[in-house]
Amino acid sequence: MKTREYDLIILGGGPAGYIAAERAGALGKSVLLLEERWIGGTCLNEGCIPTKTLLYGAKLYKQARSGEAFGVTAENVVFNLATAVAYKNKTVTTLQKGVRSQLKQHGVEVREARGELVRPGVVLVEGEELWSRYILLAQGSDTARPGIPGIEGNSRVLTSREILNLDSPPERLVVIGGGYIGMEFASLFAAIGTKVTVVEMMREIIPTIQPDLAATLRKHLKDVEFRLGYRVDRVDQGTVHVSQPGVDAEERIDADTVLLSTGRVPRGRSEKLDKAGVALRGNAVVVDEYMRTNLPGVYAAGDITGRILLAHVAYRMGEVAVAHMFGERRSNRMRYDAIPWVVFTAPEVAGCGLNPEEARNEGYSVVTATVPLQVSGRYLAENPREKGTVTVVTDKRDGRLLGVQMLGTGVGEIIHSAAAMIDAGLRVPEIREIVFPHPTVSEAVRDAVWALGYHSKQDR
Amino acid sequence: MKTREYDLIILGGGPAGYIAAERAGALGKSVLLLEERWIGGTCLNEGCIPTKTLLYGAKLYKQARSGEAFGVTAENVVFNLATAVAYKNKTVTTLQKGVRSQLKQHGVEVREARGELVRPGVVLVEGEELWSRYILLAQGSDTARPGIPGIEGNSRVLTSREILNLDSPPERLVVIGGGYIGMEFASLFAAIGTKVTVVEMMREIIPTIQPDLAATLRKHLKDVEFRLGYRVDRVDQGTVHVSQPGVDAEERIDADTVLLSTGRVPRGRSEKLDKAGVALRGNAVVVDEYMRTNLPGVYAAGDITGRILLAHVAYRMGEVAVAHMFGERRSNRMRYDAIPWVVFTAPEVAGCGLNPEEARNEGYSVVTATVPLQVSGRYLAENPREKGTVTVVTDKRDGRLLGVQMLGTGVGEIIHSAAAMIDAGLRVPEIREIVFPHPTVSEAVRDAVWALGYHSKQDR
Repeated sequence: MKTREYDLIILGGGPAGYIAAERAGALGKSVLLLEERWIGGTCLNEGCIPTKTLLYGAKLYKQARSGEAFGVTAENVVFNLATAVAYKNKTVTTLQKGVRSQLKQHGVEVREARGELVRPGVVLVEGEELWSRYILLAQGSDTARPGIPGIEGNSRVLTSREILNLDSPPERLVVIGGGYIGMEFASLFAAIGTKVTVVEMMREIIPTIQPDLAATLRKHLKDVEFRLGYRVDRVDQGTVHVSQPGVDAEERIDADTVLLSTGRVPRGRSEKLDKAGVALRGNAVVVDEYMRTNLPGVYAAGDITGRILLAHVAYRMGEVAVAHMFGERRSNRMRYDAIPWVVFTAPEVAGCGLNPEEARNEGYSVVTATVPLQVSGRYLAENPREKGTVTVVTDKRDGRLLGVQMLGTGVGEIIHSAAAMIDAGLRVPEIREIVFPHPTVSEAVRDAVWALGYHSKQDR
Repeated sequence: MKTREYDLIILGGGPAGYIAAERAGALGKSVLLLEERWIGGTCLNEGCIPTKTLLYGAKLYKQARSGEAFGVTAENVVFNLATAVAYKNKTVTTLQKGVRSQLKQHGVEVREARGELVRPGVVLVEGEELWSRYILLAQGSDTARPGIPGIEGNSRVLTSREILNLDSPPERLVVIGGGYIGMEFASLFAAIGTKVTVVEMMREIIPTIQPDLAATLRKHLKDVEFRLGYRVDRVDQGTVHVSQPGVDAEERIDADTVLLSTGRVPRGRSEKLDKAGVALRGNAVVVDEYMRTNLPGVYAAGDITGRILLAHVAYRMGEVAVAHMFGERRSNRMRYDAIPWVVFTAPEVAGCGLNPEEARNEGYSVVTATVPLQVSGRYLAENPREKGTVTVVTDKRDGRLLGVQMLGTGVGEIIHSAAAMIDAGLRVPEIREIVFPHPTVSEAVRDAVWALGYHSKQDR
């Protein structure tokens, strides 16, 4: 039964969904956004924003106890997790209101309801079939639940969702999975006094970053214990049983709380999109560079596509989808060569584009340079005990910038310039002519570009 | 008497001089750097770096006392200026060593001696005439000493040089001159408990920034008293006599310490460069876009040219000069359309390119957008009480980015991307396709670009 026609119905109100809604609304299109749980999605409600709020509190706590060299002393410095969590909740509420207000300003209709794709052009909402010219699938992802005996029904085993609402820090925390989510929580809880052990199956944490940066990050997190190359065999109450492949002995780690952070799973299959005819690969919706699925008029964006599960990638995907639906030039397509990422540990790790190994694997003839962030006077002044670095990766053939990786306090606010420079196709001589403000940490990027073995006369 | 021939002799070891020396050294040229006072110049020894070190201490002090909302409490928080100054001195020494080590690595000969330009190709050093193919004038600037009765020989009247080495904060400080130097000190001392009054002759502080940002900055510095549109008539011990033009009454402000910050004067005339035949305008050396003076083979860079007295401009000028001397492509010339700047107050103010008024005055048909930094979840979480903003300025004709201005904690590390984007000539549709990492403050720049009244379909 055809009841109403929209230009666009969006399933899911996370970053992909709400940005797509705003952009389509700004073009004057009639848009319905369906979100059954909470506007803002995982990112705003139980991901990026909550963790960063708590991490900022932890940073202040650490700074208040270590300001002596800079002339600042304090006594009885206390971190109260319950207060920090209350502040986190307040921040999330404010931001939810902000997203709702933006949607309203852009004329988007929002319904707190589950939407189900029936077939191209038709969505089922609370028993009613709604029609739409275009449909955007943006239902996101769930925390992966690996088949480890003893984790289901175990009240000590939490995901990133529940651990964000503890009243007090656990004494002993075991983090299963040393990816960026696991490492952010490890950094957070170690900073506020929890004894943290990270168990990771691979030989290094955060497999997507340069191995040397991962190792440097581990060195900075000196209160965190790492079991790399370990498998979790089972969890028994708070005892985590681990072993190394090929080694017979089992080891036990005792914990009050166990965090499951072994990745996230796109909701393609759990939303039964395959039943509606959407092509999936594993749990992810298959999309092309315009975010089109195999079904006419049906697009997908964000975690559900399984391509780099980050909020800002979801934003961009949502924008690309909307641009394509409503007649944008063909050059506006999804690319993955200039996607920045930040691990919000203390210190932060950030990157964009290819790391040296990736660049070589892609067949580039690679010229790289690494400089310590201490080349920046500001960095040295503010972080005398930290060993930050920046690496730039370029293509020897034409001097084009391929990637930037950084480690150090504050690098998360710097890496976006790498996205701009890579996206614009800038080459070494052009980057050397850009003026970076002094004294800032950002200057270290420029220093790294000057440290490359190019002489500008030979570049062109 | 010809004693030795260099490829390049540089007069002055500040940012312009030492970077030029490194770049020429990297090209394999024989370089002599002459510095009579201290390597690193004003910036490293009594400017950028020392102030930022102390400002960081002041920031930690403020944060340690205001972390309660974030879950952090502390008692007896104390700021010890003597400790902070000792740390500042240590940082400066480390950085001096770093500059010396860089110069050595690049094969630069450094002499702690005064060099004097005799004529093109000839420099006098300690009674000896040295020959060089090229000469770079980089002698910098001095603090301006306005002709105010009572300031000369008055031990309470300090410049930025002396005030950096106080053992304890003054109780009452009067800052004469509300430019960026004066404002950084006002922000510093107000943060550590000094009662600060800023006296500025103009109707607004920091005349080079957008008036609305200047006003917003004043509002954030609520412990600082401002006398705008006031002239200083005389200083009598610690009493500063001020009046408003056209108003008969004189007012008195009592102070322990008076800071003179009414600008800086290029050293062209004090170095008697005019006697050697160098063309000056006022006190500044006249240069072309390749940093050539009127004399063959004689270049100038940095503050001595009187063109934007900032260290990073000096760096770039030094690089342009060296590139031109040794055969760089002609397109590498000094431009001033993408120069970033940062005022390191708390909060920071930063900008790059043209502000809306400047763009209109230059004849552009201007489209601008301003968004609060609170659009960034991270900014809101970390700065709940601050009212930061970002403004983007574009050319309506082709959507090109002309300028970015920002106010808020941390914007100093973000503004370099504006330099990259303006320098690369990016337009609105291109910037909208750049992926900024979430959740960062840098995203607010992207939000501002989306808030512009362009629809991408109409852009091209």
